[in-house]
Amino acid sequence: MADQEAIGFVGLGRMGEPIAWNLLRAGHPLTVWNRTRGKGAALVAAGAREAWDPAETGSAGGIVFTMLSDDRALEQVVGSRGFLERLAPGGIHVSLSTVSPETSRRLAERHAGEGSAYVAAPVFGRPEAAAAGKLWVCLSGEATARGRAVALLRAVSQGLFELGDDPGAANVAKLCGNFLIAAAMEAMSEAFTLGEKNGIDPKTLADLFGQTLFACPIYQNYGKTIAEGRFTPAGFALPLGLKDMSLVLATATSSKTPMPVANLVRDRLLTGIARGREDHDWSALSLGAREEAGLTRRPEPEGTGS
Amino acid sequence: MADQEAIGFVGLGRMGEPIAWNLLRAGHPLTVWNRTRGKGAALVAAGAREAWDPAETGSAGGIVFTMLSDDRALEQVVGSRGFLERLAPGGIHVSLSTVSPETSRRLAERHAGEGSAYVAAPVFGRPEAAAAGKLWVCLSGEATARGRAVALLRAVSQGLFELGDDPGAANVAKLCGNFLIAAAMEAMSEAFTLGEKNGIDPKTLADLFGQTLFACPIYQNYGKTIAEGRFTPAGFALPLGLKDMSLVLATATSSKTPMPVANLVRDRLLTGIARGREDHDWSALSLGAREEAGLTRRPEPEGTGS
Amino acid sequence: MADQEAIGFVGLGRMGEPIAWNLLRAGHPLTVWNRTRGKGAALVAAGAREAWDPAETGSAGGIVFTMLSDDRALEQVVGSRGFLERLAPGGIHVSLSTVSPETSRRLAERHAGEGSAYVAAPVFGRPEAAAAGKLWVCLSGEATARGRAVALLRAVSQGLFELGDDPGAANVAKLCGNFLIAAAMEAMSEAFTLGEKNGIDPKTLADLFGQTLFACPIYQNYGKTIAEGRFTPAGFALPLGLKDMSLVLATATSSKTPMPVANLVRDRLLTGIARGREDHDWSALSLGAREEAGLTRRPEPEGTGS
Amino acid sequence: MADQEAIGFVGLGRMGEPIAWNLLRAGHPLTVWNRTRGKGAALVAAGAREAWDPAETGSAGGIVFTMLSDDRALEQVVGSRGFLERLAPGGIHVSLSTVSPETSRRLAERHAGEGSAYVAAPVFGRPEAAAAGKLWVCLSGEATARGRAVALLRAVSQGLFELGDDPGAANVAKLCGNFLIAAAMEAMSEAFTLGEKNGIDPKTLADLFGQTLFACPIYQNYGKTIAEGRFTPAGFALPLGLKDMSLVLATATSSKTPMPVANLVRDRLLTGIARGREDHDWSALSLGAREEAGLTRRPEPEGTGS
Repeated sequence: MADQEAIGFVGLGRMGEPIAWNLLRAGHPLTVWNRTRGKGAALVAAGAREAWDPAETGSAGGIVFTMLSDDRALEQVVGSRGFLERLAPGGIHVSLSTVSPETSRRLAERHAGEGSAYVAAPVFGRPEAAAAGKLWVCLSGEATARGRAVALLRAVSQGLFELGDDPGAANVAKLCGNFLIAAAMEAMSEAFTLGEKNGIDPKTLADLFGQTLFACPIYQNYGKTIAEGRFTPAGFALPLGLKDMSLVLATATSSKTPMPVANLVRDRLLTGIARGREDHDWSALSLGAREEAGLTRRPEPEGTGS
Repeated sequence: MADQEAIGFVGLGRMGEPIAWNLLRAGHPLTVWNRTRGKGAALVAAGAREAWDPAETGSAGGIVFTMLSDDRALEQVVGSRGFLERLAPGGIHVSLSTVSPETSRRLAERHAGEGSAYVAAPVFGRPEAAAAGKLWVCLSGEATARGRAVALLRAVSQGLFELGDDPGAANVAKLCGNFLIAAAMEAMSEAFTLGEKNGIDPKTLADLFGQTLFACPIYQNYGKTIAEGRFTPAGFALPLGLKDMSLVLATATSSKTPMPVANLVRDRLLTGIARGREDHDWSALSLGAREEAGLTRRPEPEGTGS
Repeated sequence: MADQEAIGFVGLGRMGEPIAWNLLRAGHPLTVWNRTRGKGAALVAAGAREAWDPAETGSAGGIVFTMLSDDRALEQVVGSRGFLERLAPGGIHVSLSTVSPETSRRLAERHAGEGSAYVAAPVFGRPEAAAAGKLWVCLSGEATARGRAVALLRAVSQGLFELGDDPGAANVAKLCGNFLIAAAMEAMSEAFTLGEKNGIDPKTLADLFGQTLFACPIYQNYGKTIAEGRFTPAGFALPLGLKDMSLVLATATSSKTPMPVANLVRDRLLTGIARGREDHDWSALSLGAREEAGLTRRPEPEGTGS
Repeated sequence: MADQEAIGFVGLGRMGEPIAWNLLRAGHPLTVWNRTRGKGAALVAAGAREAWDPAETGSAGGIVFTMLSDDRALEQVVGSRGFLERLAPGGIHVSLSTVSPETSRRLAERHAGEGSAYVAAPVFGRPEAAAAGKLWVCLSGEATARGRAVALLRAVSQGLFELGDDPGAANVAKLCGNFLIAAAMEAMSEAFTLGEKNGIDPKTLADLFGQTLFACPIYQNYGKTIAEGRFTPAGFALPLGLKDMSLVLATATSSKTPMPVANLVRDRLLTGIARGREDHDWSALSLGAREEAGLTRRPEPEGTGS
């Protein structure tokens, strides 16, 4: 595996670290950087090199992956001293973060201006899926660069979807996916509340629909979570959900697309934060429908999540 | 199979007829009735008997299934001359129609008052699923009667869900399911519209989500329909969808349950009818989000549906 | 005033009684009936006659006013023994209640079939306005009958609006008015909540808008009520508001008119009832927006309303 | 009047120019600046002085008014060379623009840091009201500076509302006001559409409510505009309405305040732009409800507005 391409990796959070591990295991010499130092210790112990700054993860014609928490963190890395210069000419920045399509379009122009390429490659899947190399990846950006990214991303994913040359397209698809999940959670919550007020245990309905009309993991897993009211610890925290729904609505506004269900789920998340649920999973947006119907929280499950 | 229980069947529409066939094929002597006479001709040719009125399909201690278009049609059959009298004592009325829980509760009382039992047994699945004996059935009502119904319904279903003694419960579950389907269609429509206004073909997103996050038939099939804009001929006509969402909201109002997504999909269906789409499939509710975003209908697919 | 026309009056509730008083004071011989007997005692002491049943308030070619709580109460009076027969031929039923346009249309046909006429004449104004003869009245129905009603209604109103021959039209206008009030309350509540969460006392905003952009009683009075959170005792109880918004939405559904703000205010009222506020004024619908924003109720005003 | 305080004025658009005239007529020596030069010609002919840049309109301890189109234009003026330096120490910037409270808070800090003060003073009223000195002004910011601003603003207003020391408070109040107007327009549109689909001319309802429940100019004027469908020429263009509703929602999001009616009116405005109505008055948001109900635009009024 000595001839595997060297890779830089910036951002070793809950999603970034397992992806970096999979790239290392696939035989790629790996240089990592994380804002909080020390996060890469295990990777370094396994052979990765730790860089002093983001720029050092790159090299002319090389490849750098980033997995950061939001648009601003991504823009800071790209704008950090030497980052763009080191990648040129011919380098590729594979941006895994969930950011706005506008940010991707703007960053793609900046990279092109410096002689490198930006590929948007946001992913679907939780940390466990990342660890198992079972992410779904959406890709968009300049075609040749995209092709190089595809080859590398196979090591971390169970499927890749190419969305063309517009670097923002993959981010739009990713935001659409997160919106669809939130919409499904809201719909389940309304349905389960209607059931509960008519004497049906929400767990019965979650089971029923998870086995029949909606036999897919999103409905099965979130349906169970919602029916049981088990929102801590968070798999994907409520404020992150709010960030994503805000990106959805910003994209909707700039493209003149009314999205009433997106408005609603954004509001449910605002209510969640207004009621002190920052540490809850974003599926706690489902409490909105229950509470409007006069149902109070179930006594047991809170805090018993392990 | 000569010892199979005799069954009455009222309502030979698109759903009722294939269910009746499966009961006949399972060896049950069958007596059928339909408001428009002649619908049962093929069944009669295959050995069923045609009754002169709904009452004649029943007998003391016997079993009658009904599959009717709405609450009113069901109440007319139950109220028709001799219907309740013929079933008593000990007969069972297995009501497959999608009606309001209130109607089921009221009818269950009427049956009990006459010495028979009413079991609500609404089904999920389109006519093809009914023909294949692959329906999902929700059941509720008095326990002994429910047990008898379960045994017979195995012939027409791939799964049965018992929801307890409240005769309305199965109807609540059925309405929740149809609501969840409508909500998923609205959400997909908003997402696909956002994609389309950002240069992504809706079919690409329908594929992507149908293979990944939402790998289940509702998203796959309706996703394709919505992405292609292929709403005729209708599998389940828009006015029927409006009827069901109106039942959802009536149930929500009587049980004091705000359901904002249900309001929205009801309004989308109203818009569909206001724009002359009575003959479209209910998935045409998805046009609302597109049109609000200034997208006009795709030129080709309309009318090319076969 | 001895030659003033004799009048029957059915329904001596909070609105009906002051209207009846004004008709009596205008010199009309008055025959009253109320479901709960004894409510008319003061009127009788002042010269009115109490009837034994609704029918007795009418006479051939005469005029009967009704002011009842809902569609059902109105239909019961009209259907009561002898009511329609006594009015014919040539009598007029002036229906002041807030009911659905469908009910008015149906009742108008029934009256016409018996040789009398039904005029819908719903009113705007609270009991104090009724006592002061300062109601606003909407009228619709057959033109000649409407003309007779107009002459009599001057005694109880500060303004009359004729809406043509369709007997349902006046009810549509009345429902529109109540909807506009509810919508204004919801909008104020959202605005005041936004202010409160940004450090501005709701009373300051209520004052500001009541003096400037919205210098009209609805905004001034309800604005103050909402800003102070003073919802008991009820001027117009929350369940009555729900009844009216349900009529709005039933009319909207039958005429294929999506009304998203009406959906919202209906849901706010449902939440109010789900949270045990049946005895609150319908302006308590404004608590919905506050509570979704994580604001709890102000400690003082509750219960201090006098 | 020779002892009237000298004033700088930046921004001579549709609102700024008439305000500047009133200040000039009140006897204040006036120095004006506008991005597009020449807009101040008439003012200069009447005695005002035209500055070469925004900074030149100010002086140590002096007063500068600004009336600009949006947050960005305001930030550019404040950030322009010398602007803040010229005002210090002791100068006051009276900011009349409709901007976000966040912008006001941030700019107030910047001014304080340089030794001057920022007073937010957004106004209600259209250009004619500005010309007549009949604006309503909301004020907030540091108390002494606010006091000086109040004295000067009497010349341009019929009423002043002080909202305390938080410089963002006046902007919140202004945004609330514009939101209430938009909400009233949406509600009227839904009501008039319900009426129209039940055979009632929208003009009849606009009249009725403008004379009774809502006898205030917002309902009377916008009611007439909406009922007549007369949206051009624009008094306040649709994209400006969208800008304001976006500020409302950004403020709502940052203060965790769900505002469902604000979501709705924002979406109506998005639809308006998606359908090519950028040149329409923002009251054209009312077309959304009509079009969802299947009503097409009235043929005549478009373009006949004069």
